Amino acid sequence: MSAPPLRLPPKKMGLVVKTSSPQAIALGQQVLSRVKEKGVEVVVDAQSAPFLHAEPGPSRAALGREVDAVLVLGGDGTFLSVTRGCPATTPVAGVNLGTLGFLTEHPAERVWQLVDDLLAGNVQCEKRDRLLCRVEGDDSPQEFLVLNDVVIAKATLARILTIDVEVEGEFLSRYRADGLILASPTGSTAYNLSAGGPIVHPELSALIITPICSHTLSNRPLVVPLNFQVAVRVHPGDEDVYLTLDGQYGLPLTDRHVVRVLPEGDPLLVVRPPNASFFAILHDKLKWGDWGS
Amino acid sequence: MSAPPLRLPPKKMGLVVKTSSPQAIALGQQVLSRVKEKGVEVVVDAQSAPFLHAEPGPSRAALGREVDAVLVLGGDGTFLSVTRGCPATTPVAGVNLGTLGFLTEHPAERVWQLVDDLLAGNVQCEKRDRLLCRVEGDDSPQEFLVLNDVVIAKATLARILTIDVEVEGEFLSRYRADGLILASPTGSTAYNLSAGGPIVHPELSALIITPICSHTLSNRPLVVPLNFQVAVRVHPGDEDVYLTLDGQYGLPLTDRHVVRVLPEGDPLLVVRPPNASFFAILHDKLKWGDWGS
Amino acid sequence: MSAPPLRLPPKKMGLVVKTSSPQAIALGQQVLSRVKEKGVEVVVDAQSAPFLHAEPGPSRAALGREVDAVLVLGGDGTFLSVTRGCPATTPVAGVNLGTLGFLTEHPAERVWQLVDDLLAGNVQCEKRDRLLCRVEGDDSPQEFLVLNDVVIAKATLARILTIDVEVEGEFLSRYRADGLILASPTGSTAYNLSAGGPIVHPELSALIITPICSHTLSNRPLVVPLNFQVAVRVHPGDEDVYLTLDGQYGLPLTDRHVVRVLPEGDPLLVVRPPNASFFAILHDKLKWGDWGS
Amino acid sequence: MSAPPLRLPPKKMGLVVKTSSPQAIALGQQVLSRVKEKGVEVVVDAQSAPFLHAEPGPSRAALGREVDAVLVLGGDGTFLSVTRGCPATTPVAGVNLGTLGFLTEHPAERVWQLVDDLLAGNVQCEKRDRLLCRVEGDDSPQEFLVLNDVVIAKATLARILTIDVEVEGEFLSRYRADGLILASPTGSTAYNLSAGGPIVHPELSALIITPICSHTLSNRPLVVPLNFQVAVRVHPGDEDVYLTLDGQYGLPLTDRHVVRVLPEGDPLLVVRPPNASFFAILHDKLKWGDWGS
Repeated sequence: MSAPPLRLPPKKMGLVVKTSSPQAIALGQQVLSRVKEKGVEVVVDAQSAPFLHAEPGPSRAALGREVDAVLVLGGDGTFLSVTRGCPATTPVAGVNLGTLGFLTEHPAERVWQLVDDLLAGNVQCEKRDRLLCRVEGDDSPQEFLVLNDVVIAKATLARILTIDVEVEGEFLSRYRADGLILASPTGSTAYNLSAGGPIVHPELSALIITPICSHTLSNRPLVVPLNFQVAVRVHPGDEDVYLTLDGQYGLPLTDRHVVRVLPEGDPLLVVRPPNASFFAILHDKLKWGDWGS
Repeated sequence: MSAPPLRLPPKKMGLVVKTSSPQAIALGQQVLSRVKEKGVEVVVDAQSAPFLHAEPGPSRAALGREVDAVLVLGGDGTFLSVTRGCPATTPVAGVNLGTLGFLTEHPAERVWQLVDDLLAGNVQCEKRDRLLCRVEGDDSPQEFLVLNDVVIAKATLARILTIDVEVEGEFLSRYRADGLILASPTGSTAYNLSAGGPIVHPELSALIITPICSHTLSNRPLVVPLNFQVAVRVHPGDEDVYLTLDGQYGLPLTDRHVVRVLPEGDPLLVVRPPNASFFAILHDKLKWGDWGS
Repeated sequence: MSAPPLRLPPKKMGLVVKTSSPQAIALGQQVLSRVKEKGVEVVVDAQSAPFLHAEPGPSRAALGREVDAVLVLGGDGTFLSVTRGCPATTPVAGVNLGTLGFLTEHPAERVWQLVDDLLAGNVQCEKRDRLLCRVEGDDSPQEFLVLNDVVIAKATLARILTIDVEVEGEFLSRYRADGLILASPTGSTAYNLSAGGPIVHPELSALIITPICSHTLSNRPLVVPLNFQVAVRVHPGDEDVYLTLDGQYGLPLTDRHVVRVLPEGDPLLVVRPPNASFFAILHDKLKWGDWGS
Repeated sequence: MSAPPLRLPPKKMGLVVKTSSPQAIALGQQVLSRVKEKGVEVVVDAQSAPFLHAEPGPSRAALGREVDAVLVLGGDGTFLSVTRGCPATTPVAGVNLGTLGFLTEHPAERVWQLVDDLLAGNVQCEKRDRLLCRVEGDDSPQEFLVLNDVVIAKATLARILTIDVEVEGEFLSRYRADGLILASPTGSTAYNLSAGGPIVHPELSALIITPICSHTLSNRPLVVPLNFQVAVRVHPGDEDVYLTLDGQYGLPLTDRHVVRVLPEGDPLLVVRPPNASFFAILHDKLKWGDWGS
């Protein structure tokens, strides 16, 4: 696949802040001024706009389609709210204001350098695979672009689920579990890890299928090529089942639905710090130690 | 602790059926006739009564206090609906109509033998520890007798929980997880096992503390003496948190609540098949193999 | 990579039997006659030859280089003894005489069909990635082609190991563990699975890095692209450390050695049954259930 | 069980140092002088004696029987070398010179306070259950007192083991695994934890049975009352099997042996720091976080 044409340096830059963080808001106001000073148009998403005293732009999910690059000030959750609808031609940069994130890799103290680099078009981007999730069974199928994970799970008081999974048209397994996670490599360090799934390097084009609290003790996490088609169905008796996309967007699921994960998902371009390293983040976040210890 | 005084042979026998199972209903009708023929009074719980064309008795949770013994025809879920309010002086016998259960250990083909033995007062009972769960924070504290487990868990779309646990008045850990299970040994083979907790023999007076999908990878299941007091609190920011007792009864939880597990729980008397064996059920349910394989 | 030129139908066929299995020997004698009758030369490895009253050929590891195809009658262990030195141009077919194997997928009752198909050159082959393992530190480096796994482990009484791993020249982690498994997708269902690693579909070109009984609880299995270079070193203090290749071949390891896994491993061609399915074997071997249960 | 009669303040004190640690040796020399000055006899084990320029006493395993209390300067391994033969009437105090240990709980900076408290007989002791391990099958059975764990494991290159376990005379399971750990609660945080077993509070009288890299995925750790008898046998075909006691002492095992864990094990008395807490060590060693983080 040829690299998508980037529009860097950007003429229009999107800006999103975590609105529950006073620090993110204060920094967002400064960034807004700085970028405008440089003569570049800033579009602030509708949710962040009142906090930055800015004109409300489109929703976070729609922002990426209207700008040339997006800057996110917040945590991984804020980052994911933007990536859901973001095309592969719009790079996204995440500045983390608390602890380092797997997605928001730029530390707060680098924000001015990052802004300057972005405006100069002088950034290093990394392609991250996304999953194309199609939900069939209602009048018209719905499609979602997912960076981290597609999660099928039951409500708290509901009975254990029975989930049938097909891979490439062939029956894989009938899971009896609290739920099922279909994760990208990028999402492998998120919910998948808590549920016992493996860490998968983002350069491997793979899909991870991990049950949540499997009743069948032999049901282990499975990693398949990302271009495999997967279809998931819940069982007629199951009630209060929900599909959650990137931990952000949820919809109820019944036995008439089929949840498909298809290989045609457009990747996402992530702006990374110079010398960024997936392994370094693992050390830091998971306390994997270092040479010296 | 001295054994509680049993009232066997029973003058009043409780009868409960799984109302979604035609087989359980049919068998229940036969059992009802047989026991009456023998001159013993039968009390059918309010939920089962219409299906057995019987006078509606008290609720399942209240049944054990009004009879001398209870016979349950159904699965482990039906069994648990009775044990919640059942005093230690009322033995409960469970007949499983599908696959063998950890609680409903009597196979359907033994039902007539079991009925005769029960009416003759000729049964082997085993004491099972229960947890006394007290929920403080509302106007008056609520108490529950729990056979399997106390589960604190978040709703599907909610953020990861922060759960603080104290044991014997001392801080144990701040769990960041989907939830937390406090299980008895009897409950160790239920939800606890799916969440990665150990199997604990029911003769050991212990409490198992197992996180559900822990974010902190080093948070392993912990087993403490059953007479240790445990206090659990969720964090102010957490929303849509539920407390579930034996998978049967749920109530919403907030940061103003304290969930305590106290050692004063009355045990439950379970009527077991002759030659019943905890290990034999493990083999069968978990496919642990046998000498011959 | 273009497919290697096969020499099917074979002019010379290798034959290997599990010499501890009378059934494998009896069947081997019959196969030997049948193939000779058809006018095709049979080369029997040196270890199997006395049992088949045949002329002793080369060692199992060398056999693949001298014939056009190899037929293995035995289990996965026998199969692995052949694949270690087998070039990508020599397909290997495994007939399992006991329970179905992950590698020896042909059931015994299909053996005559398989022999006929092989001699007709009418078989379906699947490419399986192998790891090229290079051990540096002695006078001259040693290289091994590995189908399942490279295992670094300590002797029983030895202290816990300290193992440093670099991936693509970058430090990954210092493992404190009983050992470390570097597995191919084909090997993911072998030792890796017992150690808690994920199942990886053989069509994904990946390498799995799984610690054995890690002391550091946060050290989870990691999956990286197969073309990543990995270097492993044990710590100066460690004693009684062994490197084991495919569970077949072992050599002592010290802190002066570097164990590298390199991407240049030649794949292996495996002859598969018609309609063979990786998922069907998972069901069968791991009791993953099926649609009907 | 009534508390054993202690002989505190001690007339004879045992002293053991980790001989590979210059810091332990230097501190040991100072402690030796100090205790002698106070008019109390010091017995130094044969292995430590040359390093302390002292008269060589008995072996570490025998030391506890000849003195009134033992002081260990080193790590958990040094501590375990003393406890193997130590009677319940001789308390042991462990000073850790590196990172805090689960057994050597006294920090180095408290050593003088500890020595003074010991000599004044003013210490808090905690009873820790030990396992009585009996190995039958040779001419005369051997018995061992074990503080942490009894481990049955295979040599590196050997095939997977088949291990049959009986509990209270009843068949529990046939394990197919690299090995099996039988751990006390004190040992639950050692090898058992690395193998996936639960943490068990030392006040619970329990035995933990945890397979090492189980081939059968459904074989989960099991916790039984400590007064249950356990018998373990390896399979005839298994070669290169070793029994290891507290990671210190090993002996070869064959299918003619029976390894029994019996409930009659004498406990060990451990001298603990004031305000010592099992949970605090968990936080520190396993990074379980604290209220403030």
